[in-house]
Amino acid sequence: MKVFRNIGELTRFLGEERFEAAVREGKKIKTGFVPTMGYLHEGHASLLRRARGENDLVVLSIFVNPIQFGPNEDFERYPRNEKQDLALAEREGVDAVFLPSVEEMYPKPTRTKIKVEGLTDTLCGASRPGHFDGVTTVVGKLLHIVQPDRAYFGQKDAQQAAVVAQMVEDLNFPVRIVPCPIIRENDGLALSSRNVYLSPEERRAALVLSKSLLKLQAEVEAGERKTAAEAQRAIVLAIEAEPLASIDYVEIVRFPSLEPLEGGADLGETAEREGVLVALAVKFGKTRLIDNVIFMNKGEQNV
Amino acid sequence: MKVFRNIGELTRFLGEERFEAAVREGKKIKTGFVPTMGYLHEGHASLLRRARGENDLVVLSIFVNPIQFGPNEDFERYPRNEKQDLALAEREGVDAVFLPSVEEMYPKPTRTKIKVEGLTDTLCGASRPGHFDGVTTVVGKLLHIVQPDRAYFGQKDAQQAAVVAQMVEDLNFPVRIVPCPIIRENDGLALSSRNVYLSPEERRAALVLSKSLLKLQAEVEAGERKTAAEAQRAIVLAIEAEPLASIDYVEIVRFPSLEPLEGGADLGETAEREGVLVALAVKFGKTRLIDNVIFMNKGEQNV
Repeated sequence: MKVFRNIGELTRFLGEERFEAAVREGKKIKTGFVPTMGYLHEGHASLLRRARGENDLVVLSIFVNPIQFGPNEDFERYPRNEKQDLALAEREGVDAVFLPSVEEMYPKPTRTKIKVEGLTDTLCGASRPGHFDGVTTVVGKLLHIVQPDRAYFGQKDAQQAAVVAQMVEDLNFPVRIVPCPIIRENDGLALSSRNVYLSPEERRAALVLSKSLLKLQAEVEAGERKTAAEAQRAIVLAIEAEPLASIDYVEIVRFPSLEPLEGGADLGETAEREGVLVALAVKFGKTRLIDNVIFMNKGEQNV
Repeated sequence: MKVFRNIGELTRFLGEERFEAAVREGKKIKTGFVPTMGYLHEGHASLLRRARGENDLVVLSIFVNPIQFGPNEDFERYPRNEKQDLALAEREGVDAVFLPSVEEMYPKPTRTKIKVEGLTDTLCGASRPGHFDGVTTVVGKLLHIVQPDRAYFGQKDAQQAAVVAQMVEDLNFPVRIVPCPIIRENDGLALSSRNVYLSPEERRAALVLSKSLLKLQAEVEAGERKTAAEAQRAIVLAIEAEPLASIDYVEIVRFPSLEPLEGGADLGETAEREGVLVALAVKFGKTRLIDNVIFMNKGEQNV
């Protein structure tokens, strides 16, 4: 496994690998890319495994991207553990890890931003203004550097995956975005690098998120009729019953368009025609967690 | 010469050409790209010739991009002549022409825009709000489709070339932007597809632009001391003496940053340290023309 901190060295390596494969083996090799902010967990590992299974070359990037954090957010204290990350990458058979510094990615403050409209003014976009511009801009940069055939995104950040897919479609990026299912702890908590912030009490309290979401999922899958408004209300009530939880949002929207779903729409029925995203963001102390379930008729994008 | 109207067919062709060259000749081929809005003239031909001289594959795109035109601008009446354009492309040895429809480029209205800040709020950006967002967005799309090694831009649109170069640098597009000198008629008029709009009287009147700019250039190159304010005033006076001309702007700025230059700065002295752009936009009847001279110490970017 090779580790690169310099853009030029990474692109030279990738260019050589691709060219050599063409010349020596008469083969067009496929590159799978997993962009992350590091502090890797089993959710990231699942993306790497999928990338490993589908591609000849697997590239992982680890970069805590300052421009997607708001001024009062956790950029400085975002957890980092390079050694542990490299060990996980090695175990998952990654070929190249890209570990740039902030100066390498932003030698001067960027004057250019990629902005996706519509999908970014709801859910996390409403609570974190400018966040998704930072995400799409850095993903655009990384896609230009790595030039992958496929890029893998976890569905825990369902809005992020939808926004990136919209960017790729609108701007004709030559890459396929592959959304991958949420990975959960045995007790249901969605894996997140930010879980490390939680105190033991908060960690216990946070189970209300997955419990209420997975309960709804089970009910809808069992054929119970439920409107979007009823479902939303039930989740809000369950979370409000937890004293340590403070709701940022609980919303039910169409997926992947993220357009509003009328309160009276039947969840099961709607999900037979189109995707439905039930998404929430809830704070436990200073820690903001997100989680979701996606109902999809087609098997393509699993929850 | 191959002509493509479909994105998928073009990208398959380019992919095959590159792959075949690697497999058969053990060679990494270079692609030169000239993006245009068509109605090609000798200015475009000069870009194609430069591209032909420097690359293995030359791709020309012809696309009148609706999203870079304002609501009261000339999108509908922008001149088009596909047959003449293809003949010129053939003469210049182009390998592939990309001629997409608006529906091919924008099957749905784009929700994604690439925006460059700072460089776009001055000069033409001040008179044409949103114009450069449309330019950078379509250039981003075209770069993703064609994936060239080099892309060629005429310096008549000096601000456009600077904005695109900034985008490429900020977003790590794997391409080199090659700025190319303005091509002029024998009497000095800068070549432009929009010259076709001019009546014979307007055509004669429009010579005041190149005359005043080239006079300034000759004076500065002859070592005459002139401040930015004096130079700007002299050009404004010359144009105001022409009854058919109506000034949009005459400005002197640093290049390529497009940052303001103090009125008291000596042009010749400044140009020894950094680039200086003298740019103007002037209307003759309904036709808005632009022209400029660039003073550069280094020979890299000629005027």
